[in-house]
Amino acid sequence: MPIPITNPDDPRIEAYRAVRERDLAGREKRFVAEGEVVLRVLLRQSRFSVESLLLSEGRIEGLRDVTDGLSEAVPVYAASRQVMDAIVGFPIHRGVLAIARRAPLPAVEELLTGLPERALVVGLVGLANHDNVGGIFRNAAAFGAQAVLLDPQTCDPLYRKAIRVSVGGALVVPFTRAPSPDAMVGALENAGFDVIALTPSGREILSRIPRSPRAALLLGAEGPGLPPALLERTRTVSIPMSGGFDSLNVATTSGIALHHLAGTGMEN
Amino acid sequence: MPIPITNPDDPRIEAYRAVRERDLAGREKRFVAEGEVVLRVLLRQSRFSVESLLLSEGRIEGLRDVTDGLSEAVPVYAASRQVMDAIVGFPIHRGVLAIARRAPLPAVEELLTGLPERALVVGLVGLANHDNVGGIFRNAAAFGAQAVLLDPQTCDPLYRKAIRVSVGGALVVPFTRAPSPDAMVGALENAGFDVIALTPSGREILSRIPRSPRAALLLGAEGPGLPPALLERTRTVSIPMSGGFDSLNVATTSGIALHHLAGTGMEN
Repeated sequence: MPIPITNPDDPRIEAYRAVRERDLAGREKRFVAEGEVVLRVLLRQSRFSVESLLLSEGRIEGLRDVTDGLSEAVPVYAASRQVMDAIVGFPIHRGVLAIARRAPLPAVEELLTGLPERALVVGLVGLANHDNVGGIFRNAAAFGAQAVLLDPQTCDPLYRKAIRVSVGGALVVPFTRAPSPDAMVGALENAGFDVIALTPSGREILSRIPRSPRAALLLGAEGPGLPPALLERTRTVSIPMSGGFDSLNVATTSGIALHHLAGTGMEN
Repeated sequence: MPIPITNPDDPRIEAYRAVRERDLAGREKRFVAEGEVVLRVLLRQSRFSVESLLLSEGRIEGLRDVTDGLSEAVPVYAASRQVMDAIVGFPIHRGVLAIARRAPLPAVEELLTGLPERALVVGLVGLANHDNVGGIFRNAAAFGAQAVLLDPQTCDPLYRKAIRVSVGGALVVPFTRAPSPDAMVGALENAGFDVIALTPSGREILSRIPRSPRAALLLGAEGPGLPPALLERTRTVSIPMSGGFDSLNVATTSGIALHHLAGTGMEN
């Protein structure tokens, strides 16, 4: 049975207090998942362990199947909408929150070694926008990418909004951080990946490149793009566009490229 | 020279007052364009005539090339950040606004008749989200679609946020409204279009369908999708995804499908 919370200062729901500020500061050991769809994805996977749930009273009945399946060790707190908003610090329309533990990030080499012979990986360089990172994880999950590698400048995929935009994809696709873009590419090359850097100045055209058994797709931020030194040591590929309007969102770009690279594998 | 505005109640900047509320109510004859990138796209096209500009003082110098090229009939108003925020009703970080006149919407048949023999058109059914509609227009512009058709339930592409997300694509790709989804498909068929409805239950796979000289891509909202009656009378196509995570954003979907359908044409 859910544990009723009537006082926003109740110490048991400390982890839910001032969600926005603490998320932006970056939580080291935990993260917040928001909304029913994301919660269901979180509970289906095994990488992240759930510590507790906080539900608004109106959501309890509809999530009975979820809470009934939880271990006794995971408390489910219930609060009125008003108390929940006071805890969280802003109106939490979805009325569904969970706190989960981050998993330790493996070394890039370790993550790559564990992948199957045929694998698709995404590498992100300098992507500081949570919507874009969330959108890329959604596409990575949809097209069955086995891993996402992040450079130090790319933002946290477990930030609440990134998880939400990913529709839970950030909880599904394993990821880790590389110490630098160069180290990322080096590790991919050592693991036998065909490293494909998407850039408007690419020497090849996406729709014409064959799918290698191990392919890695590198994406940079809209505007600056990928660093020149990185483009020099990789296979550069472009998506041809209409003359007057040469502009794609980077998450959309990832969808187009992953659709092409996943192509043959998916249709079997 | 810009006309200084020091009083937020100045009648000359009436069209900029309470921007958000008036945009949401739907402006019948005009629309608001926001930001430098969108302004530059707006001024490069000829379909929409610009009535005036409102710039924050800090943006005047950097937009001198734009304002110098304007007709005398287009006033450029300048205000301090504080006065501009007071006029608009919220902090307008970009400091760049323009009011332009809507163009009359042609009948669907008229718009289609004017298209070249080889043409790519997008049809939207029930898309009520401005981010998604903006994203789709961005992709339509990037892949050279000649027109976008909207059903009555699809939201306004000239809403400020939709234009911004489209990076001006909503000002570039001609669009009009069909009286119903059925009338949209009927008009496309009569104009010789191969009507391709994207749906998870599609009978064909996107990457395998050949590009017809005249192709029309139909997209419905995430969740409800396209109406069953419409799927019965069209060529239904799916994008294969990874088993456990069958979810793509509709704007990303449009990018993937337009990239495939534009394919051969773009690479010539």
